[in-house]
Amino acid sequence: MNYYAPPIARLIEELGKLPGVGPKTAQRLAFYLLNSPREYVESLARAMVEAKNKLKYCSVCMNITDSDVCSICSDPVRDKSTICVVEDPRDVVAMEKTKNYKGLYHVLHGVISPMDGIGPDQLKIKELISRCTDDVKEVIIATNPDVEGEATAMYISRLIKPLGIKVTRIAHGIPVGGDLEYADEVTLMRALEGRREML
Amino acid sequence: MNYYAPPIARLIEELGKLPGVGPKTAQRLAFYLLNSPREYVESLARAMVEAKNKLKYCSVCMNITDSDVCSICSDPVRDKSTICVVEDPRDVVAMEKTKNYKGLYHVLHGVISPMDGIGPDQLKIKELISRCTDDVKEVIIATNPDVEGEATAMYISRLIKPLGIKVTRIAHGIPVGGDLEYADEVTLMRALEGRREML
Repeated sequence: MNYYAPPIARLIEELGKLPGVGPKTAQRLAFYLLNSPREYVESLARAMVEAKNKLKYCSVCMNITDSDVCSICSDPVRDKSTICVVEDPRDVVAMEKTKNYKGLYHVLHGVISPMDGIGPDQLKIKELISRCTDDVKEVIIATNPDVEGEATAMYISRLIKPLGIKVTRIAHGIPVGGDLEYADEVTLMRALEGRREML
Repeated sequence: MNYYAPPIARLIEELGKLPGVGPKTAQRLAFYLLNSPREYVESLARAMVEAKNKLKYCSVCMNITDSDVCSICSDPVRDKSTICVVEDPRDVVAMEKTKNYKGLYHVLHGVISPMDGIGPDQLKIKELISRCTDDVKEVIIATNPDVEGEATAMYISRLIKPLGIKVTRIAHGIPVGGDLEYADEVTLMRALEGRREML
């Protein structure tokens, strides 16, 4: 790296720490920034620092927000008797885009994963349990359908069911537009298990 | 994007302007930054703005540098009678890594490309010609071996040869470790043309 002038070597090094950015990409991004208008570089730098400074977790649902409580939790129209549990703030956005879900969310910020040293205490599970008051009628668990997601769903379900609240899991099956032929056998099995009578 | 809190929506938007970064990657990078230590985010932001502010073109070779003239041009050990002409500051680094070239460089910052509206005047060709004094014995043209690179090499060669300076072009051929079978025919033709007597 000592082939570059120090400011650019430092920029390449810092960019190289981003996920999915190797040394070549870091170099390409660095030169792109050098050739960009000063306004863009400064506005990107400011957006990074501001996002880091202004965003926090919503004290109710643990989603990332710049106002406490977040815009979903404070929305009077939303159905406060249903909580959808997701792994990640991005999953909230994915669900919102369906425009079909009108309940509240709870963001775990991860899944139980002993291999990565992540147990229930590192997740926002305590916060979820303390939300499970008499007002709540249903908890929908929408963690990903992988090993960790299933284990986490199971763990949460066993904590919440004894409180007398209905716990549901999102359906797994063939994606819309997907092809039976290319579906893996576990997905196909789930699709069969989750079959419904046609109207 | 209005599913996200404004600071994160803005960050995703700014990141999405980087080359090779689509909306999904921008989202991933934004959340990575949110989950990173504040020190890293601030140091990345600072590195970007500082690189933009501190770096300029070397007044001799047009390479990117933080000191004028650059460390290569001001190095007393380097052979000032040879100038290697490259497209890009990254090409200087690639050449330096061979540890075999001891002359100076000249960075064109692009190649002649009428399709993109880039003519000789947008490149640092005038600056190259004005360096071609009696001290210079050889100009090595190391633009890329594509259509634009070849045209640029030809253009520069026709300007410099009348000054009585030797103009050479880097060799094209089968890459070391490459395979004849998989080489394209133009490369193979070049490799044949460039054949040398074995010692």
